[in-house]
Amino acid sequence: MSGSFRGEEVTGETLRQLGEIEVIRRLARGLGQAVNVLVGIGDDAAVVRSEDDGHDLVLTTDAVIEGIHFAAGARSAAVGRKLAGRLLSDLAAMGAEPLWILCNVAAPARTSFRALKQVYAGMKRIAARFGAHIVGGDLSRADELHLHGFAVGRVPHRRAVTRSGARAGDAVFVTGTLGGSILGGHLRFTPRVKEGLWLRKSGWPSAMIDVSDGLLRDLGHILRSSRCAAEIELRKIPVSSAARMLGDGVSPLDHALRDGEDFELLFTVPAGKAEQFIRSWKDTFRLRCTRIGTIRSGPVSINLKEAGGSLSRIYGLGYDHFSCRVGKRP
Amino acid sequence: MSGSFRGEEVTGETLRQLGEIEVIRRLARGLGQAVNVLVGIGDDAAVVRSEDDGHDLVLTTDAVIEGIHFAAGARSAAVGRKLAGRLLSDLAAMGAEPLWILCNVAAPARTSFRALKQVYAGMKRIAARFGAHIVGGDLSRADELHLHGFAVGRVPHRRAVTRSGARAGDAVFVTGTLGGSILGGHLRFTPRVKEGLWLRKSGWPSAMIDVSDGLLRDLGHILRSSRCAAEIELRKIPVSSAARMLGDGVSPLDHALRDGEDFELLFTVPAGKAEQFIRSWKDTFRLRCTRIGTIRSGPVSINLKEAGGSLSRIYGLGYDHFSCRVGKRP
Repeated sequence: MSGSFRGEEVTGETLRQLGEIEVIRRLARGLGQAVNVLVGIGDDAAVVRSEDDGHDLVLTTDAVIEGIHFAAGARSAAVGRKLAGRLLSDLAAMGAEPLWILCNVAAPARTSFRALKQVYAGMKRIAARFGAHIVGGDLSRADELHLHGFAVGRVPHRRAVTRSGARAGDAVFVTGTLGGSILGGHLRFTPRVKEGLWLRKSGWPSAMIDVSDGLLRDLGHILRSSRCAAEIELRKIPVSSAARMLGDGVSPLDHALRDGEDFELLFTVPAGKAEQFIRSWKDTFRLRCTRIGTIRSGPVSINLKEAGGSLSRIYGLGYDHFSCRVGKRP
Repeated sequence: MSGSFRGEEVTGETLRQLGEIEVIRRLARGLGQAVNVLVGIGDDAAVVRSEDDGHDLVLTTDAVIEGIHFAAGARSAAVGRKLAGRLLSDLAAMGAEPLWILCNVAAPARTSFRALKQVYAGMKRIAARFGAHIVGGDLSRADELHLHGFAVGRVPHRRAVTRSGARAGDAVFVTGTLGGSILGGHLRFTPRVKEGLWLRKSGWPSAMIDVSDGLLRDLGHILRSSRCAAEIELRKIPVSSAARMLGDGVSPLDHALRDGEDFELLFTVPAGKAEQFIRSWKDTFRLRCTRIGTIRSGPVSINLKEAGGSLSRIYGLGYDHFSCRVGKRP
């Protein structure tokens, strides 16, 4: 059934039975109060305090929609975790410290309160792990189940890491392994908040993005913003075990290149610093970090270098929310 | 058809035909750049600068959903205006200065780009009128058409006007006229940003809310937060001409008491200041502002005083997003 979560979570009172005021009262009770939150859930807006001037604010939004970002019958806590995780991953990709999250829920009136509470519990757990607080949101009735989240983070003035700073010669790195998130990783990933903050503070990356639409497409975003090309060594791509397990006729490497929702960090480091960077990374994190290629000058494109040394030029698209095409031109 | 705007706006290229990257590029071009926006649409997140420390941030969210907040076939610019207007109205009700707006659009892939552009144009016009900038958002595919907006404003530290400050004896005021927004006011209203800022700066209101769910229900929100009762004089209610035009068997007064989406400001002013306040208001604004009653001590309830002097006690609910009940107990 559309607009529903896993079976055991859809018993108990529905949103229609409780009414909006009682639903909000119960959700707010579960969230508690936090330092820096002057007015939390239950007024026209949340009022928060950013303790320290010298910072820029980082604002991001994301959506998690039934049938697109999760299947009907998914666990509601996992869906909440996914929404907050996506927001945290966006902040991580800017090198920002997470502060506050708001969440709009649009759901059928027959949705059980228990399921909604689990959505919030899932959001709260992952947010709290990275120091962020849920401070508000909006509830609406709808036929489809949509979660729309909004997050605020901060970075020291003009220190946000954007997509537009990559330069010819920079080394291209990616954290973790890629591909096959459809097997469950898209609900269980850890947003790379700690790594993003460390990268920004230590000043290594010239450009950064999180891998949400697929490696080729997200690299394409960096290249478009930075107006350059990239050469990627296919044998270096860190293919995940999930990508190898899929066995759907698409090669594990193609999954690693094109699947979305790994939420790893993809970033560039100036050529002269690349070796020093990778030593410093290994001293700090156990998480894998792989050099997969190099930024080149020239029109926006990705050159895939095969083991034998042959090159194919790809105008990679990965996941397009509207067309779902994966494009390859000769 | 579900997921559609007015006919003349649904010609031209669809979101599926253009693809997400081109859609975002074109939308960003239409929005321009603003002071205080370091990174706008097109990166992982927006980066903004709040110029001045001594302020708290005010964060709010709202949704505009086809079939709930607007009918299929509505003008797309009016729908965008409504979303931004709702957000600005929330900020107004806190006495906050609007700064930044982000908007998530979830739409069918067959949606025309022209319609989406008009949604953004509608948002931009009303936002610009009150000094706010559209700085980001997210596009997703969905079967239902949903807009989810997020806004950031600011108030001097601890000066936000909440719902919880009403005290026995305070006078209850409402701006403008009420009822019948279904005839078009719900798409055309002016958010009371200037009035909300003036009220906060001059320090009159002890509590404030915007009338989105209906007068009785929104007054109920103030009473629940402030833990008190109210006495309302029915002959004082400013009934709108739209409420009088409806002619649907419900009295114009009942429309004024219970209809939602007028987006006027409802607020309380301490008893000793009420006369001075209304003189000061009349010196400043042409907009009507009416004293409709008085806050009383006692359990949360609204006593409606009829012209003859008889009282009826109402536990008014107005619009509930999930149950749509209007409750009246003897």
